[in-house]
Formats: sequence, C-alpha cells, structure tokens
Amino acid sequence: MTMLALSFARVCSGLAPFRTVLRLQPLCSASGITVAQIDEEVAKLLELKARLGGGDDGKHQFVLKTPKGTRDYNPKQMAIRERVFNTITRCFKRHGAETIDTPVFELKETLTGKYGEDSKLIYDLKDQGGELLSLRYDLTVPFARYLAMNKITNIKRYHIAKVYRRDNPAMTRGRYREFYQCDFDIAGQYDAMIPDAECLKIVHEILSELELGDFRIKVNDRRILDGMFAVCGVPDDKFRTICSTVDKLDKLPWQEVRKEMVDEKGLSEEAADQIGEYVSLHGGMDLAERLLQDPRMSQSKQACAGLSDIKLLFSYMQLFQVTDKVVFDLSLARGLDYYTGVIYEAVLTQAGVAPVALASNDAQNGSEESVSVGSVAGGGRYDGLVGMFDPKNRKVPCVGVSIGIERIFSIMEQRAEAAAEKVRTTEVQVLVASAQKNLLEERLRLVTELWNAGIKAEVMYKKNPKLLSQLQLCEEMGIPLVAILGEQELKDGVVKLRVVVSREEVATVITASGYS
Amino acid sequence: MTMLALSFARVCSGLAPFRTVLRLQPLCSASGITVAQIDEEVAKLLELKARLGGGDDGKHQFVLKTPKGTRDYNPKQMAIRERVFNTITRCFKRHGAETIDTPVFELKETLTGKYGEDSKLIYDLKDQGGELLSLRYDLTVPFARYLAMNKITNIKRYHIAKVYRRDNPAMTRGRYREFYQCDFDIAGQYDAMIPDAECLKIVHEILSELELGDFRIKVNDRRILDGMFAVCGVPDDKFRTICSTVDKLDKLPWQEVRKEMVDEKGLSEEAADQIGEYVSLHGGMDLAERLLQDPRMSQSKQACAGLSDIKLLFSYMQLFQVTDKVVFDLSLARGLDYYTGVIYEAVLTQAGVAPVALASNDAQNGSEESVSVGSVAGGGRYDGLVGMFDPKNRKVPCVGVSIGIERIFSIMEQRAEAAAEKVRTTEVQVLVASAQKNLLEERLRLVTELWNAGIKAEVMYKKNPKLLSQLQLCEEMGIPLVAILGEQELKDGVVKLRVVVSREEVATVITASGYS
Repeated sequence: MTMLALSFARVCSGLAPFRTVLRLQPLCSASGITVAQIDEEVAKLLELKARLGGGDDGKHQFVLKTPKGTRDYNPKQMAIRERVFNTITRCFKRHGAETIDTPVFELKETLTGKYGEDSKLIYDLKDQGGELLSLRYDLTVPFARYLAMNKITNIKRYHIAKVYRRDNPAMTRGRYREFYQCDFDIAGQYDAMIPDAECLKIVHEILSELELGDFRIKVNDRRILDGMFAVCGVPDDKFRTICSTVDKLDKLPWQEVRKEMVDEKGLSEEAADQIGEYVSLHGGMDLAERLLQDPRMSQSKQACAGLSDIKLLFSYMQLFQVTDKVVFDLSLARGLDYYTGVIYEAVLTQAGVAPVALASNDAQNGSEESVSVGSVAGGGRYDGLVGMFDPKNRKVPCVGVSIGIERIFSIMEQRAEAAAEKVRTTEVQVLVASAQKNLLEERLRLVTELWNAGIKAEVMYKKNPKLLSQLQLCEEMGIPLVAILGEQELKDGVVKLRVVVSREEVATVITASGYS
Repeated sequence: MTMLALSFARVCSGLAPFRTVLRLQPLCSASGITVAQIDEEVAKLLELKARLGGGDDGKHQFVLKTPKGTRDYNPKQMAIRERVFNTITRCFKRHGAETIDTPVFELKETLTGKYGEDSKLIYDLKDQGGELLSLRYDLTVPFARYLAMNKITNIKRYHIAKVYRRDNPAMTRGRYREFYQCDFDIAGQYDAMIPDAECLKIVHEILSELELGDFRIKVNDRRILDGMFAVCGVPDDKFRTICSTVDKLDKLPWQEVRKEMVDEKGLSEEAADQIGEYVSLHGGMDLAERLLQDPRMSQSKQACAGLSDIKLLFSYMQLFQVTDKVVFDLSLARGLDYYTGVIYEAVLTQAGVAPVALASNDAQNGSEESVSVGSVAGGGRYDGLVGMFDPKNRKVPCVGVSIGIERIFSIMEQRAEAAAEKVRTTEVQVLVASAQKNLLEERLRLVTELWNAGIKAEVMYKKNPKLLSQLQLCEEMGIPLVAILGEQELKDGVVKLRVVVSREEVATVITASGYS
C-alpha cells in the first residue's frame, strides 16, 4: 500500500465507532485526491459534530475563565500599562520612528521556516474554509513580510502589539501565551553599526526611564559565534544546534551545557572545552581587541569581521553614553534563526525584583550579577529575513530591538502593590453634585457645560443622590474637585466648588459658557 | 435512516473521489458516536491534507499578502488612526471612563449562544490540544464575561481593541474581517435613562469632533418593537426573526422587507402592513407621546414602558444638548440578540462621503437623508447578558455604545488623499547634520545631548552624508529644524540652527547640558 492508502486506511478504521462497516479497496494511485476534497470531508464531519452538540458530551458545565496563559487587565493594571507604553513610545518617537500595524494573523506559510524549533509553539486558526492562518509569533516576521510586500528598502518603525505563543505559561514571572511586544527596527543599507548602536541607546534610555533597577546589556555577534565554533572544531552542520545549547548558559551552569554538547549533540570533549573557554569571557572593547589577536580566533574571517564591528559598536556607544551598562559577552547566543550579525539582550541585575532565583553560572568570573531575573529586551541584526519574502531574494538589511514588556509590567505591578500605591484609574477633575433633592436637571445642565468646555466631569446616575455618597465617590475615585449645586446658590447664579482633600470652598459664577 | 445516518452516508459518499468503495450498513442508533471521535477523524484528514502539501496542489507558489479581509496600516494611515483614537479616548476619559483589556481569544463556549445567526462568522482556533478557543467577535461579550468573573456590579469602562468576523469583506467601504471597535459601557443599577442618555451624548461629541459631516442618531427600544409586533399580531415565536427582517430596512425598500416577512417568514399580509405603518414613523418626543395615545400600541405594556423611557431619554438629551441630531425611528431594530431596552445607531448623512449609494427607502417621508453611508456607531441596553455568565443568573444592567472606527478611517483616509494633505508620520524636531566630512562623532555626540534632553532628533546613518541629502531628508519628513555642524562652528563652540522652511539661521552655543 502507498503511504496515502495507509493513512486513508487509518482514517477509515477510525470511523469504526460509528458502527459502520467500511470495506476498503487498496488505492490504485494517489492521483485524483485533492486538498479541496479533504476540505469537503472535513466540513461534513464538522457539520456532523455541530449537530451532535458542538463539543459537550452530556451536561453543560460552564467555566468562567480566560484561556490558559492569558489574562484580563483591570483598570489599575491598565493605568500602569499605559504609563509604561507612554515611556516606551516617547522614546521611540524621540528617535524618529514611524509606526505601522499588521493583522494579528498571517498566512500560515508566512511564518513557516522562520523560527526553527519554536515553530511548534505557533497558534493555528481552524480551517473553516479559505486560507490557512496562524496567529503572529512575533512582530519581526510580519515586519519583514510588510517590507517585502511593499518593496520598502528604508524605514525606521516601531510596532507595539500582542503576539502569541503556545508555550508553558509561568504567569507569576510574566510569561504568558498572549503578550505584548514593543519593537523598534531600522531597515536600510547604512554605514556599519550606527543603527545598531542606536538600538542599544534606546534600550538604555527605556530601562533607565522605567527605573526598574540596575541592568546590563549583553552584546555579541552571530559571526563571532560561528567563527568561534569553526575554530573550535564544531562541524558546520552543528553550528545552529550548538548555538541553541550555548543559548542555555543564562539558565544552566557550564557543566550541564557542556554535557548536552557532548552527550546529546555528539560534540568532541576537546571542542566543547575550547568553546567553554571562550564563552566564559566578557568585557568591553578591550576584549574585542584581545580576541582579534587571539591565535585561534583570528584565523576565522567571520570572527574577525564580527570583532571589528563590536569595536566600532563600542566606539559609537561611547558617544551615545551607554557603555556603562554594556558587556561584550561571548556566551550570548539568542534562540532565533534569523539573526546574522550583532545580537543583544538586556537583563535586570537587581536581586529580588522578581520571584525567580536562578543558580548563577558566572559567580566564578567575579561578576556582580548574583541573580538573573531574566531578559527584558533583546534583538539583533537580521539581514536575510526580508530577502526570504522577496521573489528575487533582494535583501534589506535590518536591525531591531524588542522590549519584553510583560515582565516589566509584572515588576511594576508588584511594586505598586508592595508600596500600596494609590493608582488613579480615571482622570475626572470634577464631580457635579447636589446638596438637595430635585436638582438632577441642574446637575445634567452643568455637567454638559463642563463637557462642552473639555473638562473631565461626572455626575452620579441617580435622581436624588445623598451629598455624602457623592463625596465618598470623590474620595474613592480620587476626584479632586466637587461642584456642589444648592437651591440658594442657583438663585444667586453661583456654584460652590470644593477641593475634596482640603474641604476648601469657593463660590464660582455660572456663565453661559460654563463656569469661570 | 435517521438524520445522522443520512449525513453519515453523505460523508462517505463524499469519499468516493478517493477511489475507494465504501459499503455502508445502516446505523442502528446514534448512540456511541462522540464529538471526540469526530475530532479524531478531522485531525486525521487534516494530517492527510498537510501531507498533500498544505493547500497547494503541485508547485509551491509563495503568495505575499495579508489574509483575506485584513490589511496593514502604513505610517500615514497610523498617523490618521492615532488622531481618531486620541479624539475618541479623550471623549471617553472626559466622561470618567476607566479602561480594561481582555484576551483576543476567549473559550469557545463563552461566545456560544450570544450572537444568534451571526455565530457562523466566529473564527475558531485550531484544536492543537487543550482548550477550544475562538477569536472575540465583539467587545461586549468579553466585557460581560469580565464583569461576571470578577463579580463587578458597577463600572464605566472603555475598551479599544480589534475584533474578528469571518464576514464577506468590502474593504473599500471599510468592512474588514479584522477591525477595531471603540466601546464605552456603563454597568450598574441606576435611575432610568441617565446612563443611556450619556452614551448618546458621547456619540454626539465624538462624531462632532471628528468633523465627518452631518449625522443622525436613530433611537428605538426593543420593548417598543416587541410591543409593536404583539399588537400587530406577530406570533411570539416570530419576534426575533421578524425583528431581523425589520433590521434590513436601512438597506432595502419596504416592499422587499414586506415580501420577506410574508413569503419567507410566513407572516400574514395584514400583520405586515400594520408593521409597515409603524416602521415608517420617525420623530422626536412628540412621536413617543402620540404613540402612547395610539389605540393599538397603548395596549402593550411593554411598548408603553419603552415609549415612556424614550420620552425620559429625550428630556435628558435636551439637557445634554444633543436632540438636534437624534431621531426616534421605529424602523431601527439592530441585529444582536442581547439588547433588552433602548437601542441606537448613528449614520452619516452627507452624500458622497463614502463610495456607497443605496436606494433611499424613506424619500416619501420627506427625510433629508438622501444617501446612507452606513452606520458609524451603535449600541443599546443589554440587561441580561452578564446574568448569562453568572452561575446564579445575577443580573448587572448595562448600556453601551460601540464606535465603528474602520468606516471612519476610510472616510478620513479618502479625505486626506483627496486634499493631498501632507501627513507627518514622525515627530522629529531637529536633524543633526554636518556641512563637512568627518564629523560623524560630533553629530553623534550632539544628537545624544538632544535625546538626553528629551528632544526628538535624528542623524543620517552615514559617515559622510552630503549636506544636500540631509536637507532633502528634512523636507521629505517635514522636520522643521536642522542643526548644522561645521569645523569653524565647532572651533567657536556654536552650532548653526536653521529653520528648514524659511532658511533662517541662528548660531547657538553648545553647552555641557545640550544647546541653549
């Protein structure tokens, strides 16, 4: 039997529970079977399923929750989120970025072959007839698709939007299946390392402004990694998989990483040990200079190109005043396939910020980082990705950075809670209240004047609310002012304006165009 | 044969193209067939499909596009979108709303049974193991789920986010499969019609501020519709379906609507004609008063309750100064199942704003609306929806409005294009340029000072850009100022600051903390 016949036999044997006897003749050939016909079968089965009651066997038990790995944001969380987004957006705009938006789903094939082993984490949409779609996994691949589709060779853009990964959620650590990414990318053929350095400047600015505590930005280059693998004797076809193993150095001690290289990936002990020497190194421009003189490393043209660029990068970073936080770290690898040059990752170094305590693997190097709370930003250069979407493989060099905002939210939320900080969730400036009954009309008239004048104002939706409950609402919502209407004041053509906190009062004249 | 057997036979006959002979024994009973088994079959067929090449018969042809019914937003479109969102958000905040966010997908069962006939338009996610999920269809059902889940009985919130409908897209008219909704809702037990009137005030404010041309807000009440159906002799079980037909009156002339009622829905001609008389009526508070005296209508308690509330609503709307745009229109029905009281819909009335010209069905009524460009906002009261999510069916009365932003974008985009309006897509205030070669370091140093001082600034990513190309960049991007570095100026410790449009120049002293 052919492969197809086999799988078809399995399909039919699966039908047995329908209490139907199916007799199968071997398939003569696979020809004549089209995807459209399968679609038709699937549609029929799904129709049958719908008729059977759409997924519930037996009694209906309704579960009131959000999907696994996702969460709602309540007004307080949104207030914090808005503050963070504003800081980030302000920085992106300060650096002259435009913004774009792309759909939340893409054609499945747009995402295919871009994420290596992570592809299994992509959410697919159900085949309801029509195109095969997947939820976006990041904002970088849609950006590259956008550039190729619109033949754009030059752009500096930011994009803040949700992405989706069917990962194991760890929500207390800010790891969700639906989460925001804040991406800034520079596409275009420019002089080396200038845009790359600006991306690092941006990470530095954002993490400083958000006041999350001290941080480090690790920098490396894919070409240095590849050159290092080559001179250490890693076979060409093992570069990517060994690179993935090196990427685990931020979570595992060297001994375990070495073990994986040798036992699982079949690398020689000698090669592993040579890699081990290199990946324990970190420093600044001086380290790049030293490695350019390294008898082994200097034999790789790729490594030398990468090292020269690291030197250039550091010189620009000095001008940008960010070298205080940047470390050239040969253990930084980053998971994604599409990077081709400089890569970087920012980590918060302050202990106890998040409830994660990991074994430090570089204590022996005298590093001051005792606890890693994980990466809060990362990125790098990907000069080949746009070309993958272009029919003629025309390349558009790109470099970018993605701010991992959920972890930052988590930290800020925990802080706001710990400080019992009172977060206002509305911006209302004044509540229009009444001291007596039967003043609804007057309240509505006054609040209308205020709204029309652009003032943020509210009334209670009651005909005759008590003054006390109106004042309580102000305290509860942090409304600073209350305009109190009373019969006497209305006769006098004034309204009492009270500062809620101090109880100070002034009488204000009501004019045709509001109050003055 | 049972229904199930029949459909199963159809499933199997559909397999014939696989060149397989299937012999079918009649099903003894439907028992023993589970949804899980169907799922399994579907999975197998889809696996087979994937093996056949995932939708492409033959050679792989990569299509560079966004999914059907979706679009990217380029920087210009985003600039327009941001302006519209800012106007809307400002209005929501002026009215004291907080904001929340919910996940883009919900458990499938959360959406089940909320949208009537429209449920077929819901996007489902693929069953990749785990929960069955669907993309949200609107923001109202997730809001109700959020309230019930968190036992919130009181909130005024807005939510601006994308929703998803597998509808036939009509993108030139602003109808997409992925589109934004801007929702404002008030939940809580309050005195009648005050929050309802505020929702209409909000629509009035937003449509006025956006300057989209003249508009009308149609108002009706589900209780008036139901009362009208009852007194016109529509059988109880036909209320919803006749309501759906009435809903088509904004697109079809009365004769066609009548035909559907009689021929398709089996309503008597007499009942249809009585409905016809009522739905041709529109007016203001006076019409509500007249109908309260109407011998037939006044026999329905429901209709009377609705009509009294319409009167009250109009009295509040007078105080809110919005009655100039509001019409009490008995033909307004709105599609969704969950409305229980007041409903409303705003339409732009200015001809030629959007490329849609529909046959006017109320020309005989002397209406000034000659061309309908479709609804740009809609909403109403839904007092039962939250209770559907509460295990004890505890109700939280709600009223809200949704701004249909895509149509508004389309109009504003067309306008910007027609006016050949130059839309700036960045906010850069100054370009740091150089007049001679070899001044990259100085440029980077100065732009760093500017960034650190919070000034939006850029440099060209070239070592030695020509002054002309730097000035061209300013013109192109609308950057108003250019700081020109030259060797003489550097010696003098100054920088030339030029206004790009007027070519006016001033020399500015460079200080340690930036320029002054």
